[in-house]
Amino acid sequence: MSGPTIEERAELPAGFLAGGLSAGIKASGRPDLGLVVVPGPEPATAAAVFTANLVQAAPVRLSRRNLSQTGGRARAMIVTSGCANAATGPAGDDDQAAIAAAVASTLGVDVETTLCASTGLIGTRLPVGRVRAGLTLLVQESLRDDAAGWEAFGTAIMTTDSRRKTATTTIALPADDLSLRQVRVSGVAKGVGMIHPRMATMIAIILTDAAASPALLAALLREASAATFEQTSVDGDTSTNDTVVVLASGASDAEPPRPGSSEAAQLGVALTAVCRSLARQQAADGEGATTLITCVVTGATDLIDARAVSRAVVRSNLLKAAVHGRDPNWGRVAAAAGAALRPDGSPVDLDPATLTIGLAGSAVFSGLPLPFDAAAVSAAMDAPELLIEVDLGRGSATAEAFGCDLTEAYVLENSAYST
Amino acid sequence: MSGPTIEERAELPAGFLAGGLSAGIKASGRPDLGLVVVPGPEPATAAAVFTANLVQAAPVRLSRRNLSQTGGRARAMIVTSGCANAATGPAGDDDQAAIAAAVASTLGVDVETTLCASTGLIGTRLPVGRVRAGLTLLVQESLRDDAAGWEAFGTAIMTTDSRRKTATTTIALPADDLSLRQVRVSGVAKGVGMIHPRMATMIAIILTDAAASPALLAALLREASAATFEQTSVDGDTSTNDTVVVLASGASDAEPPRPGSSEAAQLGVALTAVCRSLARQQAADGEGATTLITCVVTGATDLIDARAVSRAVVRSNLLKAAVHGRDPNWGRVAAAAGAALRPDGSPVDLDPATLTIGLAGSAVFSGLPLPFDAAAVSAAMDAPELLIEVDLGRGSATAEAFGCDLTEAYVLENSAYST
Repeated sequence: MSGPTIEERAELPAGFLAGGLSAGIKASGRPDLGLVVVPGPEPATAAAVFTANLVQAAPVRLSRRNLSQTGGRARAMIVTSGCANAATGPAGDDDQAAIAAAVASTLGVDVETTLCASTGLIGTRLPVGRVRAGLTLLVQESLRDDAAGWEAFGTAIMTTDSRRKTATTTIALPADDLSLRQVRVSGVAKGVGMIHPRMATMIAIILTDAAASPALLAALLREASAATFEQTSVDGDTSTNDTVVVLASGASDAEPPRPGSSEAAQLGVALTAVCRSLARQQAADGEGATTLITCVVTGATDLIDARAVSRAVVRSNLLKAAVHGRDPNWGRVAAAAGAALRPDGSPVDLDPATLTIGLAGSAVFSGLPLPFDAAAVSAAMDAPELLIEVDLGRGSATAEAFGCDLTEAYVLENSAYST
Repeated sequence: MSGPTIEERAELPAGFLAGGLSAGIKASGRPDLGLVVVPGPEPATAAAVFTANLVQAAPVRLSRRNLSQTGGRARAMIVTSGCANAATGPAGDDDQAAIAAAVASTLGVDVETTLCASTGLIGTRLPVGRVRAGLTLLVQESLRDDAAGWEAFGTAIMTTDSRRKTATTTIALPADDLSLRQVRVSGVAKGVGMIHPRMATMIAIILTDAAASPALLAALLREASAATFEQTSVDGDTSTNDTVVVLASGASDAEPPRPGSSEAAQLGVALTAVCRSLARQQAADGEGATTLITCVVTGATDLIDARAVSRAVVRSNLLKAAVHGRDPNWGRVAAAAGAALRPDGSPVDLDPATLTIGLAGSAVFSGLPLPFDAAAVSAAMDAPELLIEVDLGRGSATAEAFGCDLTEAYVLENSAYST
């Protein structure tokens, strides 16, 4: 699970402008409109993964259609927060199309090269007039080519997030004269409820000044997302609006890596590392959460089993509540692992006789309960991050998943969200 | 969903003795040992469904083996509460076998005709000596042939349950001279955490003085369980110890119904009605719960879709928290329904355009958001039971599922369970 050095800060890759401001969607007056623009001679290549929820938000449907029409090119991405524009019927689709048209005319780009995402309450309509006015102001006054603009974008897409989520890494890829170019990969994301991705997740936008073909970018993103965002659960609820987008401007002047090359692998590792950092920040900031739970599964028969078991553990309400109380109740890990299902509904390859469980560094079960110092393990659990290790003893596949504890604050926050 | 009249009380069918007492398994001193005995000339026919969790408790493994060896006959069932005897390795199997041997020798019956179930903390050992002593006392002094004995059994199997769960119905089936005999079907069950059945559930024991072949009984139980216990979720966690057992003594002198006959159907309806009542009592008494949530799905393409969607809705943490706050946030119903998966992992047949949602009797969404009086719906939600209606508009299949709200009390109760 090691990778390149990741810093939890924003750095805007070359070839992009970004910004954010308050357009008045949120009653609170906090920032709620973010825009990324590709000002160069060519559009960026673009790839995305979207929610598998059948109740898909209007922005998800529109972005999916536009990406398909352009074959993976984009000039701009607009994100609104405070309103999901989901389950709003044909009128919601019209609203989103009107916003896309405004982006296109304001920037002078083809409407098909605009992408969009929204997040917030389901079933409410977007205030299109306010979004249009905010957009005009944003393009006139707030677009920047530096980290501050990218941070403003990251702030504008937040909903119940308590902090902005950013991650940046840098790699070196060869230009056409074989000299090395610095390539930046930098992402922002928002959480932090209704997070239980299936083929996609929440909202995350990753920018890079690498050059990459749409096909390579899509393949790298799918791999990165499967290993990170799709292994993250805050509450077991899959959103209607999940969207992960990556845009590659090519402005680093590095050559586009050939699929299968070591440069493509390097870019993939960087992308995965940024996604992993963002996913962990989402889980750590899960609604009401105080503890980031990382479950590492080893000894699985295959990757599917390893991912399924680690996801099942971090999803368990009972385990999450026990973590909140620093209760070393490892039986809940065993029960969650034993109930894990592969995506086709078949059981995983697990036998309690070869199962080993570790909590916060202490082995607590290995085929049978091990004696351990409950007070010491409980004290070790009282930390911002808890490591749960599960060895299935059946093979050599490994995976990790990210979650958080279940707290009274989660219940309080979600018992009065729409009213 | 209509059925025979169900009363939430215990009535011991003819041909059984039952009782319960404190054997000292629970530190609290509350009752923790229950026993049902079949004293007649023949053993009862027996059927059961067990948890699909791969970490199966020792009593689950033993009961499964015994049932298979006898071809569906039983003389006794012993239930211990306060210790799950799960994830206890070979020593746990030995403990359970010793208890079965004690039941057999105390009652003078074949050990293969004994069934067992346990519930409580995972990973702890059963105090076999105390169970043996308690069993002797129970057989000598506490077995009864009346409702009080059956109630004592129901009390002894409780863990975090706040109240005993009992349900009884009576039907009339013909004897060999074609005159009608009163046939009772009466069940007890315990909940109320780690409840999210997959092919089985929690612990429930249903007794009937009907006569029935093991094959018919197994078929009727599988159908009843699929429509009731397997449609119930308290927290999305599937237990290691789930067990539902039905015993038929034949002491009513009614003839055993032929498979496919109207009498078999009548017995099946009665069994399902008892299971449904127990499942609803489990959901209503879910850990920390204040509101029973019933989700009725209509208009589904098939029964599998209807069951999957209703289960997904009652499982949603976000919806459960909204119900707790009486927040008519129907978007969470739409999101949960849209993320529902069939058991093979494939999506259900759902289109937001034909989707209709009702909350506490008010239509709130029908292809698009409907105007409704949020304060009035919120007030209507402030009740011991909430009905959520989802019409998929795709076909004619229907199903229901049972759950409960998610409360701060659930978190508190489960943040310090083992310590």
